[in-house]
Amino acid sequence: MNVVWLNGRLLPAAEARIDPADRGFTLGDGLFETIRVAGGTARHLARHLARLADGAALLGLPLPYDATALADAAEALIAAEGRAEGVLRVTLTRGTGARGVLPPADAVPTLLMTLAPAPPPAGPVEAVIAQTTRRNEHSPLSRVKSLNYLDSILARQEAATRGAGEALLLNGAGRLAESSVANLFIVRDGRLQTPPVVEGALPGIRRALILERGNAGEAPLSVADLLGAGEAFLTNSLGVRPLLRVDGQAIGAGRVGPVTTALLKDIAAE
Amino acid sequence: MNVVWLNGRLLPAAEARIDPADRGFTLGDGLFETIRVAGGTARHLARHLARLADGAALLGLPLPYDATALADAAEALIAAEGRAEGVLRVTLTRGTGARGVLPPADAVPTLLMTLAPAPPPAGPVEAVIAQTTRRNEHSPLSRVKSLNYLDSILARQEAATRGAGEALLLNGAGRLAESSVANLFIVRDGRLQTPPVVEGALPGIRRALILERGNAGEAPLSVADLLGAGEAFLTNSLGVRPLLRVDGQAIGAGRVGPVTTALLKDIAAE
Repeated sequence: MNVVWLNGRLLPAAEARIDPADRGFTLGDGLFETIRVAGGTARHLARHLARLADGAALLGLPLPYDATALADAAEALIAAEGRAEGVLRVTLTRGTGARGVLPPADAVPTLLMTLAPAPPPAGPVEAVIAQTTRRNEHSPLSRVKSLNYLDSILARQEAATRGAGEALLLNGAGRLAESSVANLFIVRDGRLQTPPVVEGALPGIRRALILERGNAGEAPLSVADLLGAGEAFLTNSLGVRPLLRVDGQAIGAGRVGPVTTALLKDIAAE
Repeated sequence: MNVVWLNGRLLPAAEARIDPADRGFTLGDGLFETIRVAGGTARHLARHLARLADGAALLGLPLPYDATALADAAEALIAAEGRAEGVLRVTLTRGTGARGVLPPADAVPTLLMTLAPAPPPAGPVEAVIAQTTRRNEHSPLSRVKSLNYLDSILARQEAATRGAGEALLLNGAGRLAESSVANLFIVRDGRLQTPPVVEGALPGIRRALILERGNAGEAPLSVADLLGAGEAFLTNSLGVRPLLRVDGQAIGAGRVGPVTTALLKDIAAE
């Protein structure tokens, strides 16, 4: 990352300064989006920006640029970096504020865009059910992509300690919500199911695209539902990962199944 | 705030730069402490630093300075600012990291200290029971002072919308946890009670001091318990606020009661 877009202009990353009084830094008071860049284009950008606007409305956080201006900024950053494949991140915070929890009335938001290299293809993964923490379905924050990511970080650290690449988070009721960075789908009787947003699942962009294709629906899912599924996979804006084992138990045959294979093929052709 | 202490040295606030890749900014991956400075001294500093160390252990976040070094830094900042009364804030983050939730193995933490002016004395307050969000007692983050403050921000915004100065947060089970920035105590039959930490209450420093004085204990508290209490008050490191009304209903006589008055007198004499 050599260049970033910060508050209206491109500048070298080394010159980009976040104020120590920025509420994104002091209180996690902000949102972000992670967007796949492929063939020089930010994929599903309109959907990402719509979700960002939804989150900003929830937080009462003014979004200082419209979708066109943000799309132009993304394009300029991708061109400046000369990187056709990568991960675009848009971070929106409340901006600086004096001490205190209540946001200032005259907040001037911070908007940062960065472009990271594309990660290596994410293959099949084994997950644990996080025991350290749970997702809070009673908070509307579970339905926006906020900067408050510590529960996911704790869950992922637990997974690493237990020798797994991912962690699934339960909600307060003990049902499955999502993974540390992705939505969960299972295949049951040939049909795709994913936890509803009210269960603590982020309304993921890839999740929405799959739900719109049909033969997929939302359903509260228990751990037993997952362990008894024919296949399972994880989705986020960067792709789809087959989920082969959970807490050491194979899902289905413990191999990438036909439904997941077909989905991976469709996405690769997008 | 003219001077800050950042990563080992004092410097003008305008020159202090947080890296846009700091995980405190990108993921809320960090902790903080808010400490009252009175008579030129950071009060109960050892307890605050012990809590910070507990939080750092939970997050697996190396604390790059020992308590003596941090106390020296606080003293230097207070002297440089020439401010005998104020609010010291210590912020510890994971430092910079590449994209991704799992912390880098070689994280170099960021440590920032700032000194804000003392707020005006916080008088009695009226609160609402937040309907927007709840505190997550299933997460260990409810027991450390992390940078993930958005639930408190949402609750406080709701309070402001509803014409109140504070918000009380319920936990997932529907019992009282704490306020957006303070612990809750009620007076029942002359005895002080406060929600246990396992109910989603931060282990506040002032809360601990009160519990250690005796005639006080932890107890799960319902909204009915609060509304039926003789008195109620809120505590944090900056002081004690009488809580006179909740959702428009008077607590006790709706005036500052004798137990709260005695406590305020004791603290003023500290």
